[in-house]
Amino acid sequence: MPNPTAAMLVIGDEILSGRTRDANMHYLAGEFTKHGIDLKEARVVSDAPDAIVAALNALRAAYDYVVTSGGIGPTHDDITADCVARAFGVGIDVRDDARAILQAHYDRQGLELNAARLRMARIPDGAALIDNPVSAAPGFSIGNVHVMAGVPSVFQAMVASVLPTLTGGAPLLSQTLRVMRGEGDIAGPLGALAADFPDLSIGSYPFQRDGIFGANIVVRGADGARVDAAMTRLSGLFAE
Amino acid sequence: MPNPTAAMLVIGDEILSGRTRDANMHYLAGEFTKHGIDLKEARVVSDAPDAIVAALNALRAAYDYVVTSGGIGPTHDDITADCVARAFGVGIDVRDDARAILQAHYDRQGLELNAARLRMARIPDGAALIDNPVSAAPGFSIGNVHVMAGVPSVFQAMVASVLPTLTGGAPLLSQTLRVMRGEGDIAGPLGALAADFPDLSIGSYPFQRDGIFGANIVVRGADGARVDAAMTRLSGLFAE
Repeated sequence: MPNPTAAMLVIGDEILSGRTRDANMHYLAGEFTKHGIDLKEARVVSDAPDAIVAALNALRAAYDYVVTSGGIGPTHDDITADCVARAFGVGIDVRDDARAILQAHYDRQGLELNAARLRMARIPDGAALIDNPVSAAPGFSIGNVHVMAGVPSVFQAMVASVLPTLTGGAPLLSQTLRVMRGEGDIAGPLGALAADFPDLSIGSYPFQRDGIFGANIVVRGADGARVDAAMTRLSGLFAE
Repeated sequence: MPNPTAAMLVIGDEILSGRTRDANMHYLAGEFTKHGIDLKEARVVSDAPDAIVAALNALRAAYDYVVTSGGIGPTHDDITADCVARAFGVGIDVRDDARAILQAHYDRQGLELNAARLRMARIPDGAALIDNPVSAAPGFSIGNVHVMAGVPSVFQAMVASVLPTLTGGAPLLSQTLRVMRGEGDIAGPLGALAADFPDLSIGSYPFQRDGIFGANIVVRGADGARVDAAMTRLSGLFAE
């Protein structure tokens, strides 16, 4: 059975303007790989409702799981929850269980649950809350879409909450051989090897360091014996 | 006149598996912002021809410029050039000018221009070469699509080659105020300010450090006097 597929939608002008470098995509990619879920696509869109709704609908139709990050805070530019409700064609309002979580959190801090903070209790109809042990304001899951915060520490906590509830597949096994030769020298035999192991994914990732060209050759697959067999051939081909 | 729009397409399994953290999107976002080009969307897709062609056709129809990174090396998993040719419905073959560049480069190094390396001279019909001062193998531009290497040093050199040829707009001016208060405290007045300056983009980017919550409030716009006016109001609102 093939592994479940997933996509990520990063929401935020700050990534596209170059102000902030996204860290959540790389984190989610690693967690999904460990869990046997194939991240197939990621998109970054700006804080524009039409762009968010269109991307969300395209991705949730195409993949088993969708994770979003960003845009669920209390400020005027946090519009993700409303866009998700629109994409699913459902209503959205302050919900009692989300409000209770926020009320308890701000009571503990001696802060007022004002109108802005209460916006974070607005949850699309039919969604289930995602626990936020860092800063209380919950994410939520609706259909196959999991809506999480953009602040990396909160995003990571929410991934930890949701991941055990997702059906994973066989974790991809991966082995890497570092070859200190230019890709042009290794491409011929490597292509022949890839043709002999069509069940594996064999990638070549070139690098350049101090003027020396090399490549990391990564062999990935679900069957450990096949990965080992390819690595044995690989080592024979490119032994220094 | 609104600024030109752009999208980026990152091609590579290694990003989606979590093996490599993409650096090119953040770099391009910064360069485009300086140049007055609005990066509106970015996508990451795997080394799958259908996914690459579909994303490329969607993005080149929707935005003024598209930049791709990755998949133009000599190995079997480098399929970007073929996918670009397919997306544009044109042929692709080894081209003399590209072959001459590679021949000279490998002659200088005493290396053979073998079949694998010659793959890097395969250029879609009608494309213009992009100079690669780092490792010779050229990128190319076809229509509004600019195809660049994934290795960051080469990607950055190709961006430097192409950027002067793209029509830019008014560079966005941006000022930031750091406020050491939770977003819930500042959201109300900030929303009112944003409503009073609809011509500006006013974003709030929360952070958490050592348990303290704060936010960077970023005001962006093409008109410096308006940005100054909003910043003056902002400083008055949130003076510590």
